[in-house]
Amino acid sequence: MVARAMANFGLIDLRLVNPRDGWPSEKARAAASSADHVIDAVRLFDSVEAAVADITYLLATTARPRDSYKPVRGPETAAGEMRARAAAGQKVGMLFGRERYGLSNAEVGLADEIVTFPVDPAFASLNIAQAVLLMSYSWRAAGADDATAPRFTAPEAPPAEKADLHRLLDHLETSLSRTGYFHPPHKREAMVQNLRTMLTKAGFTEPEVRTLRGVLRAFDYEMGERGRSGRETTG
Amino acid sequence: MVARAMANFGLIDLRLVNPRDGWPSEKARAAASSADHVIDAVRLFDSVEAAVADITYLLATTARPRDSYKPVRGPETAAGEMRARAAAGQKVGMLFGRERYGLSNAEVGLADEIVTFPVDPAFASLNIAQAVLLMSYSWRAAGADDATAPRFTAPEAPPAEKADLHRLLDHLETSLSRTGYFHPPHKREAMVQNLRTMLTKAGFTEPEVRTLRGVLRAFDYEMGERGRSGRETTG
Repeated sequence: MVARAMANFGLIDLRLVNPRDGWPSEKARAAASSADHVIDAVRLFDSVEAAVADITYLLATTARPRDSYKPVRGPETAAGEMRARAAAGQKVGMLFGRERYGLSNAEVGLADEIVTFPVDPAFASLNIAQAVLLMSYSWRAAGADDATAPRFTAPEAPPAEKADLHRLLDHLETSLSRTGYFHPPHKREAMVQNLRTMLTKAGFTEPEVRTLRGVLRAFDYEMGERGRSGRETTG
Repeated sequence: MVARAMANFGLIDLRLVNPRDGWPSEKARAAASSADHVIDAVRLFDSVEAAVADITYLLATTARPRDSYKPVRGPETAAGEMRARAAAGQKVGMLFGRERYGLSNAEVGLADEIVTFPVDPAFASLNIAQAVLLMSYSWRAAGADDATAPRFTAPEAPPAEKADLHRLLDHLETSLSRTGYFHPPHKREAMVQNLRTMLTKAGFTEPEVRTLRGVLRAFDYEMGERGRSGRETTG
């Protein structure tokens, strides 16, 4: 699940220290979904010191305050700091503890700074995979603007020109007039203004205005057909 | 795992629609670790519409591009928008899809806006619990610094509850069905979705939805009168 969390946000360098269940692990590969590229690149170390040997800026993730004079950051500012240092050519890393016991004080002591999560003090129960997911997301979100931008944007439809919108509003007014909607007559002006305000505020695009014209034509047609049918049989 | 993710960041209102494995679920309770207060408060619904009936601002989480004109946001700006609206007294909600298939287009169509995650396009594989964790974290992080939250000016009228909006959309569909608007029949579903998306995006207030119901009743009445008039003379 850690590999999968990393892969979602473009991280690939996973280092394990004395994994409890051994390595390689078919169970881990299965849980990683298709993040095989992370699993395949895993490196094993027999001490935390060895695992972080080439790192110049190391963050330790902890669930609770430590009796330490290290700076404590939230995920966003921590990720921003890592991004800035990485951009300056530094090798940066994040250190996560054991599932049940976290990091020892000695292990936290290896880090330059501490990052902790703004969890509810009444219910703080993030597992490693969740912590890695949040830090991986924060790393990506702290990146270039285009990395944090959503991967897709709504298709751009051109906004309706006011003339098109006004033709729609005129059409609605005409169709509604046939139904007796504008009653009593002295309220007609206020009712028209109300409809115009509402439909202008809606900010319809040009294709949307075209669709709404079609809707009105359908009502017009039905009213006309019934009307003609009535006239034919009565006339 | 969803309940646990929520609890870590102080969220408690979990609503389930037709849970695949039934409810209550001992498996779910076990996976929730000690987030019993979330599990105990779960409410069940038999449709998404019912689940979001009292919500006024609904975000849909999606993993891939949709052919939709709804605004698309990243988690941070989406959470900021939700915070601002909640602070203004609105009821806000997030909609998550099925583990394997996500949300249908019709379900996405119920939302005001779409939120998506800045995942690596080459490896996009967030499960529901991960998506909920990221959104819950973003929600909490957006509240940590009120000064940075986007300013939101409450509209003069309260926004419509989704149940009111859905009654309007059902009404429009029924009225249009009488006119033969949905032609050819195999395009009906797409046409309905198009109308629902457009009128959801418009962000109507509660009095505006009431006004539009009145507009439809006027057309209904006229179509009915003419129809009755025609029937009377022919019968």
